[in-house]
Order: sequence, then structure tokens, then C-alpha cells
Amino acid sequence: MFYHIKELQYNAKPERPDPVYAKKLQEILGGQFGEMSVMIQYLFQGWNCRGEQKYRDMLLDIGTEEIAHVEMIATMIAQLLDGAPVKDQEEAAKDPVIEAVLGGMNPQHVIVSGLGATPTDSVGYPWNARYTIASGNLLADFRANLNAESQGRLQVVRLYESTTDPGVRDMLSFLIARDTMHQNQWMAAIEELEQNQKAIVPSTFPQELEKQEVSYSFMNFSKGEESAKGRWASGPTLDGQANFEYIANPEAMGQIPNLNPSPAYIHGSPIPGQIPPGVQNSKYDQQPPLSH
Amino acid sequence: MFYHIKELQYNAKPERPDPVYAKKLQEILGGQFGEMSVMIQYLFQGWNCRGEQKYRDMLLDIGTEEIAHVEMIATMIAQLLDGAPVKDQEEAAKDPVIEAVLGGMNPQHVIVSGLGATPTDSVGYPWNARYTIASGNLLADFRANLNAESQGRLQVVRLYESTTDPGVRDMLSFLIARDTMHQNQWMAAIEELEQNQKAIVPSTFPQELEKQEVSYSFMNFSKGEESAKGRWASGPTLDGQANFEYIANPEAMGQIPNLNPSPAYIHGSPIPGQIPPGVQNSKYDQQPPLSH
Amino acid sequence: MFYHIKELQYNAKPERPDPVYAKKLQEILGGQFGEMSVMIQYLFQGWNCRGEQKYRDMLLDIGTEEIAHVEMIATMIAQLLDGAPVKDQEEAAKDPVIEAVLGGMNPQHVIVSGLGATPTDSVGYPWNARYTIASGNLLADFRANLNAESQGRLQVVRLYESTTDPGVRDMLSFLIARDTMHQNQWMAAIEELEQNQKAIVPSTFPQELEKQEVSYSFMNFSKGEESAKGRWASGPTLDGQANFEYIANPEAMGQIPNLNPSPAYIHGSPIPGQIPPGVQNSKYDQQPPLSH
Amino acid sequence: MFYHIKELQYNAKPERPDPVYAKKLQEILGGQFGEMSVMIQYLFQGWNCRGEQKYRDMLLDIGTEEIAHVEMIATMIAQLLDGAPVKDQEEAAKDPVIEAVLGGMNPQHVIVSGLGATPTDSVGYPWNARYTIASGNLLADFRANLNAESQGRLQVVRLYESTTDPGVRDMLSFLIARDTMHQNQWMAAIEELEQNQKAIVPSTFPQELEKQEVSYSFMNFSKGEESAKGRWASGPTLDGQANFEYIANPEAMGQIPNLNPSPAYIHGSPIPGQIPPGVQNSKYDQQPPLSH
Amino acid sequence: MFYHIKELQYNAKPERPDPVYAKKLQEILGGQFGEMSVMIQYLFQGWNCRGEQKYRDMLLDIGTEEIAHVEMIATMIAQLLDGAPVKDQEEAAKDPVIEAVLGGMNPQHVIVSGLGATPTDSVGYPWNARYTIASGNLLADFRANLNAESQGRLQVVRLYESTTDPGVRDMLSFLIARDTMHQNQWMAAIEELEQNQKAIVPSTFPQELEKQEVSYSFMNFSKGEESAKGRWASGPTLDGQANFEYIANPEAMGQIPNLNPSPAYIHGSPIPGQIPPGVQNSKYDQQPPLSH
Amino acid sequence: MFYHIKELQYNAKPERPDPVYAKKLQEILGGQFGEMSVMIQYLFQGWNCRGEQKYRDMLLDIGTEEIAHVEMIATMIAQLLDGAPVKDQEEAAKDPVIEAVLGGMNPQHVIVSGLGATPTDSVGYPWNARYTIASGNLLADFRANLNAESQGRLQVVRLYESTTDPGVRDMLSFLIARDTMHQNQWMAAIEELEQNQKAIVPSTFPQELEKQEVSYSFMNFSKGEESAKGRWASGPTLDGQANFEYIANPEAMGQIPNLNPSPAYIHGSPIPGQIPPGVQNSKYDQQPPLSH
Repeated sequence: MFYHIKELQYNAKPERPDPVYAKKLQEILGGQFGEMSVMIQYLFQGWNCRGEQKYRDMLLDIGTEEIAHVEMIATMIAQLLDGAPVKDQEEAAKDPVIEAVLGGMNPQHVIVSGLGATPTDSVGYPWNARYTIASGNLLADFRANLNAESQGRLQVVRLYESTTDPGVRDMLSFLIARDTMHQNQWMAAIEELEQNQKAIVPSTFPQELEKQEVSYSFMNFSKGEESAKGRWASGPTLDGQANFEYIANPEAMGQIPNLNPSPAYIHGSPIPGQIPPGVQNSKYDQQPPLSH
Repeated sequence: MFYHIKELQYNAKPERPDPVYAKKLQEILGGQFGEMSVMIQYLFQGWNCRGEQKYRDMLLDIGTEEIAHVEMIATMIAQLLDGAPVKDQEEAAKDPVIEAVLGGMNPQHVIVSGLGATPTDSVGYPWNARYTIASGNLLADFRANLNAESQGRLQVVRLYESTTDPGVRDMLSFLIARDTMHQNQWMAAIEELEQNQKAIVPSTFPQELEKQEVSYSFMNFSKGEESAKGRWASGPTLDGQANFEYIANPEAMGQIPNLNPSPAYIHGSPIPGQIPPGVQNSKYDQQPPLSH
Repeated sequence: MFYHIKELQYNAKPERPDPVYAKKLQEILGGQFGEMSVMIQYLFQGWNCRGEQKYRDMLLDIGTEEIAHVEMIATMIAQLLDGAPVKDQEEAAKDPVIEAVLGGMNPQHVIVSGLGATPTDSVGYPWNARYTIASGNLLADFRANLNAESQGRLQVVRLYESTTDPGVRDMLSFLIARDTMHQNQWMAAIEELEQNQKAIVPSTFPQELEKQEVSYSFMNFSKGEESAKGRWASGPTLDGQANFEYIANPEAMGQIPNLNPSPAYIHGSPIPGQIPPGVQNSKYDQQPPLSH
Repeated sequence: MFYHIKELQYNAKPERPDPVYAKKLQEILGGQFGEMSVMIQYLFQGWNCRGEQKYRDMLLDIGTEEIAHVEMIATMIAQLLDGAPVKDQEEAAKDPVIEAVLGGMNPQHVIVSGLGATPTDSVGYPWNARYTIASGNLLADFRANLNAESQGRLQVVRLYESTTDPGVRDMLSFLIARDTMHQNQWMAAIEELEQNQKAIVPSTFPQELEKQEVSYSFMNFSKGEESAKGRWASGPTLDGQANFEYIANPEAMGQIPNLNPSPAYIHGSPIPGQIPPGVQNSKYDQQPPLSH
Repeated sequence: MFYHIKELQYNAKPERPDPVYAKKLQEILGGQFGEMSVMIQYLFQGWNCRGEQKYRDMLLDIGTEEIAHVEMIATMIAQLLDGAPVKDQEEAAKDPVIEAVLGGMNPQHVIVSGLGATPTDSVGYPWNARYTIASGNLLADFRANLNAESQGRLQVVRLYESTTDPGVRDMLSFLIARDTMHQNQWMAAIEELEQNQKAIVPSTFPQELEKQEVSYSFMNFSKGEESAKGRWASGPTLDGQANFEYIANPEAMGQIPNLNPSPAYIHGSPIPGQIPPGVQNSKYDQQPPLSH
Repeated sequence: MFYHIKELQYNAKPERPDPVYAKKLQEILGGQFGEMSVMIQYLFQGWNCRGEQKYRDMLLDIGTEEIAHVEMIATMIAQLLDGAPVKDQEEAAKDPVIEAVLGGMNPQHVIVSGLGATPTDSVGYPWNARYTIASGNLLADFRANLNAESQGRLQVVRLYESTTDPGVRDMLSFLIARDTMHQNQWMAAIEELEQNQKAIVPSTFPQELEKQEVSYSFMNFSKGEESAKGRWASGPTLDGQANFEYIANPEAMGQIPNLNPSPAYIHGSPIPGQIPPGVQNSKYDQQPPLSH
């Protein structure tokens, strides 16, 4: 169960309205790696957690914090929209700057939300739940979380670079710092889990059942071998089980596919020289005449 | 540019048709973490790569391999659908097993694709490009890739557990092995990048600009402190800059939001005691009568 | 069955082209609360209607009218796009006003639809059927309809404020008037239904089966009690069954969740101190060696 | 900002697992009118609220409660999935009941979420933000909320009818009761707002600007006049401004559309008898030869 | 403007309910190539038509007919759902056939629509407007229409094969016949247009501006030359301008891409040996200290 | 299986950056008829092909070429984004041209992809797999392919008209030429197939089972008969089986629908004069009291 307090987790006060920037800021609210994504992702990971209670508690703590981040950014966006130049459209036509602002805004910020934040990204695409994952395997999911915080911090930094409003930057500096913590947090949690199990997810699948001939081979599917220069092409593998092998000219190991013709009732492509499928249609042949 | 050869990368030959399993297998073809996702993700990361050539080459090598994985699974699905009991529906009603098969199949495997694989997941939801990321920051993206391979291998293993068809398991054992490699590969590439830059993405944002008071604090947003027991709550942080701090009772640091009333032309909620917005509507007052 | 006549229900003649406004106007054509939504919603409610014929007839009457509204707005948009400055792009660079128009347009109005209306909203997001509801319960659905006409009229008014073109305003004044009627219509139909059944949807569920202790309680899930000042917090309830109760400090009434560990074949997170799931994997143990 | 407590708002304890029912129950978690929808809808209405503080507070109180409802249902689903028969697939083929369960389950409950709830509906379609509205006009939005609680309670009741598990019914009886309250709450809030403004949203648009000839007319767009029998076709309108008028044979009031031919650079359909557009293509004629 | 008459265009009377078939039949109502798609596609092509009036009239005639097809199928589905076994779930567990029916149904047909048709396809995916096209070029669009009617008739035939209900087959036999007409219609319209313009869309682009070296070459991007055996690999081209050429070993004609490093404010991947981007960040260097 | 070579199929070198044009160019990369669509469509048609090997080979040849087209356009977009004016936002406010560029760009090209191409269209909508079809019937699918190449070439031509950059035009001239080939190719393949089977898809359905009275009738669902002037309204049909018939006043041939009331457990609308459904609710009456 949850409680709300009226204060924001941190300040969200722009110095001045900026409706074009409000559109951009939507990315970290309702975008693929915005705060809604981590909020829903962490909460579902917590609610579905079948592991130790400390993981459930930790996931719900951070998920609860993310609701507050959504709240801060939504509040910021509403204020950035305060002075949106909707009204004097006729005048705007005479002033290229205002016209440009009107052109650069998200029109739904006026028509649909009436100067409010929307649960969408910076191109107006609505947030959807396929942005999130809760797989039931904590190591897999913590890697998803580390990725989300990495992409998220990168996007916030780019938005920081795109404004000079001190109030906006102040709020973003808080989010950037929290993302520093959250990257550290997931790296720490990953390290802890990797000490208790193997590094390859899932660690519980018996490795003798996998096709081990190709478990540690880098395959070079192109002309030229620049890809041989990386850490992934030689030296011990990260799971400590083998050495990387570089296959310069990988060969196909499988068959040339040859699918059966489809049965008559599928009405696929007739194959010349074969009896036309329609004639084989026993349903047609055997059924009594229909009453139409 | 690309070339195709007719042989599959590895065998994809089921022992017998199984249209219900074909529906499930779609998850690793066109699902959130299916082969289409990694194929598109790696190719776009490669095409957009502004870093060293070895990264571009490596990304395109593995992206090219993933096209072959899509090909293998699509081929497998088409064969699993071979004997789909579409026709004798009336008979099926008498045989609960056939009825169950019909009920458990994806109806689009008959109606839409005519016993072919579809670029959708196991509930028939179409693949979409928001499953992928290419951010222009390799460390961020390699973490996305490690996550994708972790989720992917987990799903393949669950599908392995859900069938006993030796042909299907043989193909899955190949994919599981490749995912072992690919998890190793991304871990290796991450290690290499982290040695050249700081572990926090993006490493190039000056840390004195972030709100450093909260850069290393775990905030406990719940009653009870189970979350204090993890590696993320004490000890040195993973970026080596500080020690984790556990805030048992985090306080709000921000304002209570108080938004301005919306301007009249937005037609938001009238506020009692204020002059009704409609009356203030200067556009209405000042404009000449319209001709309607 | 349906017939078409060539005249529009009302005039749709702009005074001059305005491709930026055309983009905005798409919101009430193909947006969440645009005319396509009410058209499909009313038609499906009518076709699925299992109640009295007068409701079916009424729903199909208004659904048929909405097709005409879609037609009017599509026609208007095509004309607003008439002078879209696509061609002289090089010149545009020199003229900020034309450049702003190009930037503010929906590029698909040129590239995809060739100066025609599209079944999308003002950010180009395609209309989809999850915008609509036909639940089989008329009172529930008429509330959906009243909402749709309220949101719809609000959006049309905001678009009216955003243009001074007399021809566009003339058409919008017609749509606003029809929305006045349609809000009245749904309020009247709701009143009629509420006189024949209880106000709570569905009225046929035996209320003694619901957890009646909490059927009339407002729960204050925040610090501070501003929410106690509303009509919803005291006085008789609107269904006439009780008085509102204000719970200032709602307590949890449920358990602390504690989920079972997942079975081995799920390959969830291994739990330290337990036998690793992989070892328990009877499928692996018991199955004969596979032929790969 | 938000806090979490570990207890659920109400019990969520099924008597026995039922993975087919778990799939159905997803509808009120992540469906169009599920708890995620009202949670996000109320929170955004609260965060964007530019009206009196009591509305903001009330909206955030109920939004915060809805997070707890999401939590309860997610917890219930995870437990209903406890005994999902994934493993012994071969055995299942021999037992039609198990086969039917496997066929009736959502396969992603095994493959993707590892026996956890997902933010999707009962057909596996992911929740998306276009299910919600926060328009900046409280009367409009409270009608949306009344609709959401009406559709929601209807769906919960249907799910109540579809199970006999006492534990599931116990939880649903709580949700049904809360929906009774929430329908009452929005009716009360609507009543309060309608007393301060006119019933037609938005109340601030000057009615003399709308096309008043058609503001109170029901138009019969079909043969037959069953639709004349309703409250919406005669008597005083609900806004108290007029009487309903029934137009038995509504006539078109608009023009026959006649669009201009598209300019040459659009490459629309050539019109016979006109100079082919390609020839008029001044860009082609006037530009210097390109270097390709 | 449109009028409705109460009779259906053709009979839609099943002999008996069949809720599993109702789910399948949704494909041709709200699927990619269902009747909603052609309805919206033809109507928008008509409304946007800038060509001769006969095309606009024809498009709106057929678009209007398609609304009637949507109506017929929706009516059929509602009746097929009549006896849906929702209630006696406990009993169902004992009867595998009923259990199979419950497992094979779309659960939303009970929970969401209350035994009504929904604007979705056979896997419950909602119809969306990206299924349609109205490009402003009639020849292009008539090819889209011919495709839609070809895919549509194929799907109806497959559904015809999947039932033996004479009432359902009767309705489908009508739809199949109309699709015969509509395929003929679009072929005729295409033939007419191709006589007035060249066969390549758009016919108005000056062909000397295209890279004519590759305008008639089939490129064999695989080992083996089975693809040389088709009509597309030799003989005169269908536009009558040339002969097909078969390129057995197509060579790359373009550059090896080499993208510029991203500017510092993008925070892409640092490139070893270069000055770290963060240091170049003039914004950081030059800005006055922020007040946070 | 696939191989990659580093050279592009054709040059993709813009003369200068143009981030607004980069946004537009996305349409033919990740739009409904962009290169990703044909790539996935042809590959799946090939992998699912149950016809002659020459079709499979041809489909995979052209599908493989389309991957190279995606690569070219992605590379072009990355270069067009090179000089995106993100940084000096403060300066931009003073320069309307830069401001317009910022307003006209896709903000995700900075925030999300860091100056890289994205798998989305020109309004930022992500590519999804419902853009494609592989039906198992080659004639149906080749018509889909001819449509895709027609729409695609039309869009490329419009984009050619929207730029004067010689490098961009050079690449587009190559794509236009290939689309000329591909339209010819599909027309040739269609001609070949139509010689082996009837022109109506599917050719294998026995025509005596369709409702032949309406198989060749054009129905005029509007006032006025402009639609009688086309090739589709008279003369021999294109399948050579009959003559077109023009029905000036088509009559309804079906019933007036009259659906059964829904069963009590659906909680549809109560019908006045009938026993309220809740009372009939045997589940409620007969079940033992629940333990809540």
C-alpha cells in the first residue's frame, strides 16, 4: 500500500516557461527509458519477486522513488507550458519567433492536455508496457535495470545540454545524481548475485545440454577482420570457462530448407503439374449442398 | 551490403508438427527479446556507430548472424505448423485433444499466414521498433545488449523445458550456446570500455554538475529496512568514488506544487470567485462578427 | 446497410490554406476523442445492442451522423493543405516564415498522403480501436459517450481559439453545437436509464456480496486533509444508500505478500542455501540423451 | 513524494492456483479500464491540476489508492500462476484437462514473466497511455473517471462470476465495493462542479458563437423512428436551455466537395486532358544537371 | 453525408452459437485486411480524391458498402457468442469440451464486450489506422486495394473451410462473391489508369533522373541461380521500356561508411587518444555557476 | 545464412547536413512503406515459401537487397544529422532560422539516438510488423509487393522533390531506379502466376460455392451515377467470366438484426418489465456463503 506527501522529492521550478523544451522533456517522463518505465519495471519486479525479501524490499523502495520522479517531471512540464502562445495566433504569423515556438510545440499540450504533462515521449508516442521487463530472474532483470539507468542518465544529460534555464538544470542535476546512484546500485546488486551463481543467465541450465562447440566462438560474418581486435575475440571468456575463439570464415551447419506444400484447405499457391488443391477439397466434395 | 546463402546456420528440423508449440516459439522470433530485436538493434548500432571501426565491424558481424537466427526459427515454425488440424473442425468437436490443439493455436497461423511464421510474439502482438535502442553511446548500448542476451537465453531455456521434441531441442541447444557466447561477448566489450572511461554512463558529464549530495545514497521509501542488507546499501560504490549511504527515512527536498490557473483560451476548470474565463475572452470580445 | 449522399452535412470551406493548422485539426479527426472514435464507438454499441430497439436505433442514428463529421473534417484538412509549400525548399531556407511552416507541418501530409487527411491525430499517431468501448451495458457506455462528447467539445473549442479563419470557425461552430446536443443527449439517456435501475453500474450485482465496509468511504492516502472539503467526503451518497465517510488515516487490511519460490523449470533466481534448481531438474535427469 | 508499506490494502490470497483465470484477471490489471489506467489517469489529473487544492489532493489520494490496487491484483496473479503446468508437457498430451489449461494460459506467463503478473490485458496486449486522459478541465475529466469506474466495476463483476475460488472472490468483493465508492465519488464531484458552472463542457465557451440552430436537435439518420421514443428526443434539454427537437428527415447543409488538383511535385494522379504534371515540373526544368 | 437502413446487406444468421469461431471471425472484421480496413481505406481515398469525380464517387460507393460488411460481421459475431459458457466454470472443469471452449475463446468477449463484437482481430489486437493508405495517387492506391481484396478473400475462404455452420457459410459465400467483384473492379480500374499513364508509379517522374543503369536489373544476392528461371529475369520488362537483365554477381557500388565522431554535447562514446569530450564542453566551461 | 560486406550497395553521401530533412527521410526507412517493411516482408515470404524453389530464391534475393537499402538510408540519415544545432540553444533563440531547424527536427534524433537513424517513420512512430504480410499465397503476396513498391517509389519521388542536395538526390535516384525494377519484377511475377491459375485470389476456391448473383455487380450506394462511367461498371470482367453489371439502386438482402438479451451473468442492460437479472443469478442463490 502507498502514501503520498505533498512535497516533491526535489525542486521542480523553472525560471521561465519554455513550451518547446516541455515537448523535449517528455522523453524522460513517458519515453522508452523515461521515469514511467523504471517506475513500472521496478514495481512489477518487486511484486513478482520470489527471491529473498531484501530484493523485494529494495525493488519496491526504488520503484516508489521513481513515482516521485514522474511527479517531479510532470510538475516541471506543466510549468514550462505556462506561457504557451496559443491565443494570439494572428499575431504569431507576423513574428517568426512565436511562429517557430508554435511549430515546435507538441500540439496536444494545448488541445488534449490543456497545458499539462502527458504520459508520452518527446514525439507524442504514448508510453506502453512493452518498455518494461520483470522476468522472474533477478540477475537478468538487474541487467535490464542497469541498462535503463544508463540510457536514462544519458538522455537526461543531453536534455541538460539543451537548456540553460537554471531551475530546469537544477532539477536535472538531481535526477542525474540519482541515476549515478542507481547505476551503482544495480552494478552492486549484479556483483552480489554473480558471486552466488554463474555469470551467464540463467545459471541453472546444465551447460552440457547446450551446443558447446559454439559457446565461445566469435563468428566473423563479413569481409575484413577488424572485429578480431576486441576483447571479445581472444583471451579468457568472462564466465571463466574457456577462451574466446575467432572464426574468420564461419560455415553454415544446417540444412537447405524445403517446406512441404500446404494442404488444400489453406489455399496456398497452386503448384504447376500437381492436381489443383480445390479438387482435392474433400470438405467441398463430401458436404451436402448448403441452403444458400 | 549483404549476401544470402541457402543453408541455415544450424539445423532446424522438428521431429513432428506441433502447432501449439509453434505459437509459443514465436516469442523468441518476434517478441520483446526475440531474434528480430537483437538483429535490428545490433544492425542499427553498427550503422550509427561513430566510434572505432572494430566496434562497427563487430556489431555488424553479430547483427548479420542474428538475421540467420531469425531465419532458423521462422523455418522451424513453418514446419511445426505442417500438420495443423484446420479442416475437420466438426470432427474436432468430438475429440477433446484436437479441440484443445485448435484452441491453443494462434488462429492467425491459419487465417493470415497460411501455416507460416509471423513477425509477432507468442500472443500474436507484432514486433515493433521500440524494442530496440541505439543511443550513440557504446557502453550504454552494450549494457542493453547484455540484457537482451540474458532475457533471450532465459526465454529459450524455458522453451527448451516446454518441449521434448529432439529436433526442436537440438536447434534450441544451438541458440542457447550462442547466447552463452553473446553474454560473454558483451561482458568482454563492457569491460574493455570501462577500462577506457568511467563506469557511469555517460562518463563525460562533469560530476561536479550533478547534485552530489544524493549521488551515493540508497533511500528507503518503506517501513522496514530489509533493503539495508544488500551490497547496494553499504561499502564502496562500484565506480570507486564513494561509499554507499543508507537513508532510512528520506525526507522531501522540494516544494509543494502550486500551478498557475490556465489562461482563458484553454477553457480549463472555472475557479469559483474569479471572473468566469469566458468573459475575459478578448478574442471573442474584440473580433468582428464572423460570417456564419 | 448504408447510403451516401454527396453533400456534406455542413459546410467545410476554409478561407485560405493553412498546413500547420491542418496538422492540429487532425486531433479531432483521428485522435483519442476525435470523430473516428465516436463513429466506431456508437456503431459498435448499436450493432451489439441487446436492449430495446429504440436504443439500437438511436445509437446507429448518431453513429451514422458521426461518419458525416469524419467526412467534413477530412474534407477541410485536404483543403487546408492545398498550398503546402513543399516545392521551393531552397527558397524556404531564406524565408523564416516558410521554413517555420515547413517545420510545423506533419511531413506525412506530403510524403504519405499527398496533401490528404490521414486517420491519425495531431502528432501523427494512428487511430486505434482501443479508443472505443461497447461493453454490453448501456448505462456504462452512455457514460463513456458523455465523456467522449465532453472531451471532444473541449478540444474543438481549443481549436476554435487557435484559428481566425472564418470558414474553419464556421465548421467548428457547427461541430460545437452538435456536441452541445450530444452531451445533452447522453445526459438525457443516462437519466432515463438511472430511473429504471440503480445508479451504480452494474445495477444487477447483489450488493450484499460486495465488501460493504468500504463501499462509501473516502480514504485519505496523504498527509493533510484538503480532500475532506468536497462533496465526496460527507453527506448522502449519490446512490442514496448511505453517507460518505472520511477515513483520515486508512490502514492496510491485507497480508504482507510472500510468494513461493518458482519451480526449477522456470529458472528464476537461485536462492542461496537451497539446492540449485538445475540439479532438481527431473526432466534433465530422467530423459534419455538427446541425439544432438 | 510517496512511501510504501509492505501490507496490501486488502487480502489477495487465492485458495488454489488457476493459471487460466490468471490470464483473465490481467484484464483489470493492465486492460483499457484496469487499475493501471485509473492509477495513471488520476495521478496525472492531480499533478496537472490548476484548480482548487482540494481537487488536487483528492485526485492524488485516489490515485495513490489505485497503486495499491495494482499491487493487490499483481500479487493475486503471481499466486494464481503458482502451479502452472509447464513442465510435463509430454504427460499433458495424454490428459485433456492439463492440455486445455496449457492451451488456455497466456504463454508469456511462463516464457516472459516466469510466473509473474504482466502489465498487459487478458489477451496479452500491453497497457498504453492512450487509455488515459487529463484534459485540464475537471468536469470533463470527472466524467472520464465516472466512466472508467463504471466499466471497471462491470468487468470485475464479470470476473467474479467466472470463478468460485473464495479467496479470489473475497479480493474482488473489496474491489467492487471500492468501485461503488468511486462511482459515488465522481458523481458527487460532478454534481458539485455542475452547480458552479453550466453542465455542458466547456462551460466557458460563449454559446452565441456556436451554430445554435442545431444545438438541440436529434437527427434521425435512418428509416424508421424508433429513436424518437427516448428522453433525448423531446422535452426540456438537460442543460435547461431549450427543448429537444426531433428531425425526422435531416437534410444536408453543406457543399459537394470538389478538391483542387494536387500540384505537380506531389505526383498525384494525372488528369487526362491536362498537361502531364511531370512536364510542368519546373524544378526539373530549371535545375542544373546533377552530378550523379 | 450518410443514411442507415435497418436491414443488413445480406443475411447474417448462424445456425448455432460458436464462441471459438467468433474469435476467429474477428480477423476479417478488425484485422489487417478485415472489413474495417477497406472501409476506412476507401472512404479516405474518396474524401481525399483530387482526380475525376467518377473515381471519388466509385470510391465512396464501395467504401459505403464496406460499412455494411462491418455491420454484417459484427452482427454475426454477437450471435455466435450467444451461448458462451461463462457461468458454470466449476462444472466446466469436469467437461473437457467446455473447458476447451473456454480456453479457445477470446476472454474479452465476456469481460470487456459482454458478448459483443470488438474492433480487433483474431488475437485481440486492436484495429489501427496504419493498416490503410490513401496516397493521393490513384494507381498506387488501386494496387493497394487489389492487394487488400486478395488478402481479404483468401482469409474469408480459410474461415469458410474452418466451419460447417450453414448460416455462417452462407454469409461468407456472399462476402467471397463481393471480393470476386472487388478484385475484378480494381483490376479494371488499374487497367483504365494504366492506359492513360505509364505503368510505373508515379508515372510523372522524369525517368532520365533515375539511375537508369539499374532500372531493369535483377540482382542475385545469393549463391545459386534458381531465381534466374522466372519471368522477372529475362524478356521484355512490363513497362515496355527494356529487357530484364540478370546480374549473377552484383557488386557494391558505394562507399565504406565512416561517420564523424559525435560532438561533445551528445556524450557519445569517448574515443581513446582523443581529448575526452567532457573537457571540450564549452557550455560547461563558459557558463556561470548555477545556483543549485 | 547471411554475410555482410562493408561497402554500401550505392553511395550515400550528402553534400551537407540537414537535420530537418533527416526527419523526413525516416519515412522511407521505418515508415509503413519504407525499406524495413519490404525487407521483412520479402524475407518472411521467402522463409515461409511452400512453392517452387525459384520463388523462394527470388524472394530471398530481393529481401537481401532490401537490407542493403535500409543500410544506405540509415547511413545517409546519420550524416544528415552531423551538424544538428543542439548546443547553442540560447543563441538559437536569437536566430529564427536555427530556432526553426530545432523546431523542425525530431527531438529523439538528439535525445534518444545521439545523431543516429532510428527504426521509425517521419513522425517518430516506430516500425511495426503489421506493416507486412506473408500469406502463403504467392499471387496475393506479389500484389502486396507491387503495392509496396508503388507506394514506396511515390514517397521517394516526393522526398526527391523536397531537397536539392545533389548527394541525397543521387542516392534517391538509385532507389527510384530500383523501385522501377521492382515494380516491373512484381508485375512480371504476377503475370506468370496468373497464366497458371485464375486471376482471382485464391484461384482454388470452387466458384459455385460463392454467392454468384453478386460476383460481378457494381453497387451504387449513393445518389448520382458518376460511378457508372468507369471500366468497372460495364464490359467484360477481368477474370473473363462475365460482364460487369451496374446496380443503380442496390437493395438490402438481409434481416433486421434482433439480438437475444444477454444472460444474467453478463450484467448487461436490464430490460424493463423483465425480472431483474440479478435475481435470476443462480450462482448467487445456490452457492454456499463465501468466507469473506
